[in-house]
Amino acid sequence: MFRSSETSGKLFKCKAAVAWEPNKPLVMEEIEVAPPQANEVRIKIVATGVCHTDLYHLFEGMHKDGFPVVLGHEGAGIVESVGTGVTEFQPGDKVIPLFISQCRECRFCKSPKTNQCVKGWLTCKGKKLLQFLGTSTFSEYTVLNQIAVAKIDPAAPLDKVCLLGCGVCTGFGAAVNTAKVEAGSTCAVFGLGAVGLAAVMGCKAAGAQRIIAVDINPEKFEKAKVFGATEFVNPKDHSRPISQVLAEMTDGGVDFSLECVGNVGVMRSALESCVKGWGVSVLVGWTDLQDFAARPIQLIAGRTWKGTLFGGFKGKDGVPEMVKAYLDKKVKLDEFITHNMTLDQVNDAFCSLTFALYTKRCVLQC
Amino acid sequence: MFRSSETSGKLFKCKAAVAWEPNKPLVMEEIEVAPPQANEVRIKIVATGVCHTDLYHLFEGMHKDGFPVVLGHEGAGIVESVGTGVTEFQPGDKVIPLFISQCRECRFCKSPKTNQCVKGWLTCKGKKLLQFLGTSTFSEYTVLNQIAVAKIDPAAPLDKVCLLGCGVCTGFGAAVNTAKVEAGSTCAVFGLGAVGLAAVMGCKAAGAQRIIAVDINPEKFEKAKVFGATEFVNPKDHSRPISQVLAEMTDGGVDFSLECVGNVGVMRSALESCVKGWGVSVLVGWTDLQDFAARPIQLIAGRTWKGTLFGGFKGKDGVPEMVKAYLDKKVKLDEFITHNMTLDQVNDAFCSLTFALYTKRCVLQC
Repeated sequence: MFRSSETSGKLFKCKAAVAWEPNKPLVMEEIEVAPPQANEVRIKIVATGVCHTDLYHLFEGMHKDGFPVVLGHEGAGIVESVGTGVTEFQPGDKVIPLFISQCRECRFCKSPKTNQCVKGWLTCKGKKLLQFLGTSTFSEYTVLNQIAVAKIDPAAPLDKVCLLGCGVCTGFGAAVNTAKVEAGSTCAVFGLGAVGLAAVMGCKAAGAQRIIAVDINPEKFEKAKVFGATEFVNPKDHSRPISQVLAEMTDGGVDFSLECVGNVGVMRSALESCVKGWGVSVLVGWTDLQDFAARPIQLIAGRTWKGTLFGGFKGKDGVPEMVKAYLDKKVKLDEFITHNMTLDQVNDAFCSLTFALYTKRCVLQC
Repeated sequence: MFRSSETSGKLFKCKAAVAWEPNKPLVMEEIEVAPPQANEVRIKIVATGVCHTDLYHLFEGMHKDGFPVVLGHEGAGIVESVGTGVTEFQPGDKVIPLFISQCRECRFCKSPKTNQCVKGWLTCKGKKLLQFLGTSTFSEYTVLNQIAVAKIDPAAPLDKVCLLGCGVCTGFGAAVNTAKVEAGSTCAVFGLGAVGLAAVMGCKAAGAQRIIAVDINPEKFEKAKVFGATEFVNPKDHSRPISQVLAEMTDGGVDFSLECVGNVGVMRSALESCVKGWGVSVLVGWTDLQDFAARPIQLIAGRTWKGTLFGGFKGKDGVPEMVKAYLDKKVKLDEFITHNMTLDQVNDAFCSLTFALYTKRCVLQC
């Protein structure tokens, strides 16, 4: 269904995958989509990636008040209609929803140091949003404030660039924007899901000389090589702590480490794997169930611990640039995708990803 | 006793305060001081500060194999004689011992990012040093490798500039070199011992607009004002977490926070007191008894956690510059000193400092 002239300004019904409660399969339902209000954009979602964070919310999150919800936040689509006051977008524009908005007006948007717009999904309009991560892309249609939509090149294939809505920007930007990986440096990437593979790609783009890929599933190493990994370490192959193994391989530790798992034990290992004096470790994976921790000497010895959300990209600026980089063949996207399914098959996608320990990236056609 | 021509090249005896075992008073003993070997410098210690780290080693450290030892690491003195191969120093030079050396040759010395010379006291000559922090200044004489000695302006009063051997450089540099406090920013300094007061002074030197001094002892606030603090918060005055109090005072949190206590709970508070997006928190206080910890979202939201040792100063370069800044009245030192005693009174100094919760800085004449 896509008839802008017929639907514009009207409430209509469409299909969406609804998560009614935690730990239960999603249910395909008919939902009502209101017309876009002032400053809002209604988007036909064409394709959406399935990301660890969707599964995390369903299976691991502790926010029982976060249901019912339409999950999904790694989408790409076409503008169906716009509300009053919207001049940047027109029906037919290709767009990517942003789970971190870019209002261009708050002090966070005005600072070059951060992408964390104060009008993000947590506080937009002063109340908690019901949409998942402000986007809810497991649906044929969604409605967003225009500050949370990035216009992209009309030539972009939406079933590929949807991955730039979360995972690939997150990993790539973690290396390039947050860690600020330097040419000639040695990096370690912990966890080789889509975010980790994108981090490997970011390290390579930044000119890293050695990129050590760390995972307990050796099947991922071949894929990591495609993205630029130069060495591979499976912690299960060693009885010593992985930080010690990496220190021995690198004369004291790596210059940059990226934790792309969301596990507090791995966060500690990633920090401890850094060289003293200037090593930088970045939390990229998401968890909020436990504290991360280390001994003070780890930082006092000169290491830096950082974190990243959406790889530090300001969405309206960064996402179109990443789309262009893909069209210019400077960034890979096709190689991440292991499954193509339809929105109806979202539960199969969840099962597949869960049992594969997130080795796979599935794109759903909506 | 100071007769360079009489003693040069000879083994002699001098007085030193020996810590025979943990938790026991130091004992004034006659120790033998060997002549300086190749690349070594023998120094008459004229004055030494008493630092928290000395007390920490005696009362809180867990390294029972670190005894017997001559404590003290915040000294200043005069070169008595030099070994072969030493051209930088001559008898009579005023110097400050460095507990982090600067060999100028290792990859850490060559990097502008760090002061953590690989030939530091932990690994100098490939074996564990018996000197405390490589310096052992609670003694009339000590012997150091020339890479661990900074030559300073002959006009410098040694009973003041000794404080630049540790505490004042540590706190000042934590703000200026490690946090890189920016002009116009808002800072919070947790803990107002000598290190914290020096951090306040560093924030002011860097042009911070607001410097919020945090301590549970309100008696320290007057002194903090002398060094540049603009506001004062006593966590005991509030039932809410201190991070919440600071967030309310600063529209979301401070730009820079410095933990100058060495307490893992305070480290967490200092991080949580930073604004999202770009807040930087630095561990300045020392402890190795427990892990520091926080929720991952604290970093993922854009905060950075760093640490500092000796304030990031490369000793041979930085200490003479700080001495010059003191002589040029750009850095305060006299205001830190609350007690002047003799080396014989070191146990009285320890008692006084301990019961004063480190509000005081004592300088011993050796």
